[in-house]
Amino acid sequence: MLDFHKNSKTRLTELGEFNLINHLTSQFSIKQASSLLGIGDDAAILKPNKPIVVSTDLLIEGIHFDLAYMPLMHLGYKSVMVNLSDIYAMNAKATQITVSIACSNRFTVEALEDLYAGIHKACELYGVDLVGGDTTSSIKGLQISVTAIGEANEEKIAKRSGAHENDLLVVSGDLGGAFMGLQVLKRENEVFKVNPNNQPDLSEYTYIIERQLKPEARKDIPELLEKLEVVPTSMIDISDGLSSEILHICNASKVGVSLYEEKLPLDPTVISSCEEFNLDSTTVVLNGGEDYELLFTVKQEDYPKIKANPSLSVIGHMTKQDQGCHLITRANQSIPLKARGWNALEDED
Amino acid sequence: MLDFHKNSKTRLTELGEFNLINHLTSQFSIKQASSLLGIGDDAAILKPNKPIVVSTDLLIEGIHFDLAYMPLMHLGYKSVMVNLSDIYAMNAKATQITVSIACSNRFTVEALEDLYAGIHKACELYGVDLVGGDTTSSIKGLQISVTAIGEANEEKIAKRSGAHENDLLVVSGDLGGAFMGLQVLKRENEVFKVNPNNQPDLSEYTYIIERQLKPEARKDIPELLEKLEVVPTSMIDISDGLSSEILHICNASKVGVSLYEEKLPLDPTVISSCEEFNLDSTTVVLNGGEDYELLFTVKQEDYPKIKANPSLSVIGHMTKQDQGCHLITRANQSIPLKARGWNALEDED
Repeated sequence: MLDFHKNSKTRLTELGEFNLINHLTSQFSIKQASSLLGIGDDAAILKPNKPIVVSTDLLIEGIHFDLAYMPLMHLGYKSVMVNLSDIYAMNAKATQITVSIACSNRFTVEALEDLYAGIHKACELYGVDLVGGDTTSSIKGLQISVTAIGEANEEKIAKRSGAHENDLLVVSGDLGGAFMGLQVLKRENEVFKVNPNNQPDLSEYTYIIERQLKPEARKDIPELLEKLEVVPTSMIDISDGLSSEILHICNASKVGVSLYEEKLPLDPTVISSCEEFNLDSTTVVLNGGEDYELLFTVKQEDYPKIKANPSLSVIGHMTKQDQGCHLITRANQSIPLKARGWNALEDED
Repeated sequence: MLDFHKNSKTRLTELGEFNLINHLTSQFSIKQASSLLGIGDDAAILKPNKPIVVSTDLLIEGIHFDLAYMPLMHLGYKSVMVNLSDIYAMNAKATQITVSIACSNRFTVEALEDLYAGIHKACELYGVDLVGGDTTSSIKGLQISVTAIGEANEEKIAKRSGAHENDLLVVSGDLGGAFMGLQVLKRENEVFKVNPNNQPDLSEYTYIIERQLKPEARKDIPELLEKLEVVPTSMIDISDGLSSEILHICNASKVGVSLYEEKLPLDPTVISSCEEFNLDSTTVVLNGGEDYELLFTVKQEDYPKIKANPSLSVIGHMTKQDQGCHLITRANQSIPLKARGWNALEDED
């Protein structure tokens, strides 16, 4: 599934570092009024007229992605999404990114063109400017570092720490899809190793595979909340899994939570694939990662403004801290929430 | 020379990712008025009241540093310096950094504590706030990504593109030391491999070894220029070598240059070590990297303001673009300047 250009393999050293950066970024243009100077100097120059939010992530081949089933164009796109998601999770508007990559000489110029095509598409669709970065070689594999910058109205910034008792817990979209998409891709990769000529029909899994390979950051949610005149009391994006993100809000806000299993938003494809893989869908939602939905709390009085919205699900409410953090099951049992999530450090051998 | 704590080796997995970040950054405090929120949320919140400059660098073990002779505390310090240098090269004031690291399980908690002790020292001495970052595992080696942010007065920002014909070319400090320090360290490392009990006396090389292991970004130069009421017409930092940095200014500014060999500032230790290693000091200055001095141009009329300053050397002047870029040797020969520099992409095998 690697989308390296088939007929053209230009070694990175043929271009050299300076020319490579220019070559890869030549198609990018500057659109934000606050971007005074982009790529090509010691630093980018920005002139924001509001407070800014800054977030950064490092994506490592073999830890965060596997090129056996992640096409480079999708990887470029996803690298940007992961970071923009953090900006939207502050209830802010993403405006600029920088992208640094390190790669070994197994990568060709054409491979990096594919990676940057995905980055470019993400910048175009989400209206952010690529204003800087670094390109270097690595001893092994591909490493991608993205820093995202956004602008926010100070009084509307949503931290993790602002939730109060009785606030409603709300999530955008549906959950568990990215994790189940990964299970399908891993299985097909194993099949492919045994029989490379097998042409699997994955059409029934399209939704969950796209959730894994081409996640979309929820740019629309801060815009929707603005339109609905709702200021979330706290917010976080779901990268590690619902359970650990809820606990982050509870810890930072010093509150407890009652989360209702029956309220968890699941796409039908997630339900059917969980059955097929013999996995419990609630466990997948709580501990599967990479959905990049937004999890936030709102005041009770804002309920009428959000209740009919198809993009939003109220999944619980905040309690006093000493009441703890619990999942209320369909059978009305109360089970303590645990942070499982994706602990990248546990992936080592 | 690895400064891992000798008696304590805590595996990274014993802490877990979230606790590791908290543990490593607990000693850092926020000092800049523009830092509204630091580490611990989806993004940092900054409220600059001036235009900002943003720069990012990725440092890869085996490409940019070798832990055989680079202690981790120094590496942490240097990682910050490399990035602050880019901010000062815009004639700006550095205010915040984010630091992301990926490391394999060969690193212990104590090793990362050393790395962060160096980052902490750099933040303290240079008055910048650590406001974000990411910590993850890698398949192999250590990767460090730093993004630096600074504030600038818009009318005083120095790009690479502002040099004009007849402007003077000026450099801070002295050149070639970092490269010669690396030669000494590499030689001693080879000796160490043969005879680990050898205790070399490196005191005569102290200056150049410090230039390599503990470079200082020139925070003082933008401050000095402010005091002297000099606004540089262009500026760049010297990370790759004088020659390629001069050519960057010439290309961006569409000018030529006459650089005078006799004016190149050399420390006596650089001269003596070049003799010892049988290297031409001018070649070392032109092509050796990592000095992190600032190279800039000023108008002729500013010459009286800078001529007596011990931190600054006038090394040439800018010419018409069609006159080309030349080194004028002590023998009054004119030799075309070539970009050799450190091309990280050529280091691959």
